[in-house]
Amino acid sequence: MTVNQSQILTIVKVGGAVLEDEASLSSFLDRFVAFPGLKILVHGGGRAATKLSEKLNVESKMVEGRRITDATALDIVTMVYGGLVNKKTVAALQAKGCNAAGFTGADMNLITAQKRPVQQIDYGFVGDISKVNYEALASILSLGITPVIAPLTHNGNGQLLNTNADTMASAIAVAMANIFSVSLIYCFEKPGVLSNPDDDKSVISVLKPESYQSFKDNGIIHSGMIPKIDNSFVALQKGVKQVIITSASSLDINTGTKIML
Amino acid sequence: MTVNQSQILTIVKVGGAVLEDEASLSSFLDRFVAFPGLKILVHGGGRAATKLSEKLNVESKMVEGRRITDATALDIVTMVYGGLVNKKTVAALQAKGCNAAGFTGADMNLITAQKRPVQQIDYGFVGDISKVNYEALASILSLGITPVIAPLTHNGNGQLLNTNADTMASAIAVAMANIFSVSLIYCFEKPGVLSNPDDDKSVISVLKPESYQSFKDNGIIHSGMIPKIDNSFVALQKGVKQVIITSASSLDINTGTKIML
Repeated sequence: MTVNQSQILTIVKVGGAVLEDEASLSSFLDRFVAFPGLKILVHGGGRAATKLSEKLNVESKMVEGRRITDATALDIVTMVYGGLVNKKTVAALQAKGCNAAGFTGADMNLITAQKRPVQQIDYGFVGDISKVNYEALASILSLGITPVIAPLTHNGNGQLLNTNADTMASAIAVAMANIFSVSLIYCFEKPGVLSNPDDDKSVISVLKPESYQSFKDNGIIHSGMIPKIDNSFVALQKGVKQVIITSASSLDINTGTKIML
Repeated sequence: MTVNQSQILTIVKVGGAVLEDEASLSSFLDRFVAFPGLKILVHGGGRAATKLSEKLNVESKMVEGRRITDATALDIVTMVYGGLVNKKTVAALQAKGCNAAGFTGADMNLITAQKRPVQQIDYGFVGDISKVNYEALASILSLGITPVIAPLTHNGNGQLLNTNADTMASAIAVAMANIFSVSLIYCFEKPGVLSNPDDDKSVISVLKPESYQSFKDNGIIHSGMIPKIDNSFVALQKGVKQVIITSASSLDINTGTKIML
């Protein structure tokens, strides 16, 4: 198999509750495997790391939804994201006939990052992405492999870094847009971005910068959804063809929220 | 880069105390990076798994030096071997200029195994290797990547399995002998197989089946060294060109113990 610029590549990011429930995960992976064309899966795993921290009597320190990653927390996310979640997902995909392989940003030097500078908050071993090695990712795809990427990067000097999975997916999508026609799909336990959090039928079908601003102003879109949508706009501005936020159980790009410039 | 049968490939297995001490590991990795030609690193990590089990108040059940792997123990080795040890090693190799990537047997369907049948002892989720996908490993090498392999396999039906790292290294060496001229190096904290465990200068320079039998009969070679040497003879019988047991700090194939048929 060879790759060329007209080929469609889909980056799918899955996180949260979907990863924690075996039935939800299996159902999502069935949809993922059935999804046509070349694809890359990016996963989170936040709550699993929190659970392991609790069992180890290590306090999970969060500021504005972001984990403060000291050396112990880094070991925990390396174990949970890079080991448990990543390898279980790969084994499950193999069983479903998808030739997956798990990677972090350190593997094949795929994603380098810089430790976030200390300003008001010291986030610890958290990495802000500096480069995605899209040639290396393309070489894996050219072997017929579906990469499964854990939200860990490295600084090139031996230091692993914890990196937000939504941002990873966006950065990978942007870099891969150099050589593919890229779609980015954020999927989670809801059917899309909702105008009423209690009504799963209230999916906002199209979100443009103006309507996004108004939903934010009204407090309808808030907290964890904001960086996801901000990452979506950045991806579109930098050459990604389409961004959809949709349900992990359907992975249906027609029923979710389409982000548009 | 292309690969061909006359090319030399070295499989290096490292384990035990070397992995636990940061200075020993770094020194070993320097030697590994400097080692010429194509290479694959296979690592263990047993004591790190035991340490995490202790922190989680999970009892490590061992029978004859082998871990009994129930579901909780499997999660622990998946986190420690597949996550912590594997990714830290990859990040350290990247920092030393070696383009490494970490894998388990599930990734790229590299190594399939069968859950060990229950006889006198139920070892739990322990895998006996059925197939090494040497074409896939060769395809990674052909990208200029140095594989770093954690001692985990899968059964192809979604189940990860814990597999002895010495056996993994031997099975990989045998499979790769189909397309390369393969050397297998077991390295650890001692300079080789010793005739006197208290004297590091007592390295047995050559070990053949007859002398091995006599050392075993006299109790000089015992416990963990026996499966390592048994694996070495199997590798040689199945086409591996040379097997050496030597020091991780020197990785010197001339000063260790050479296993010969």
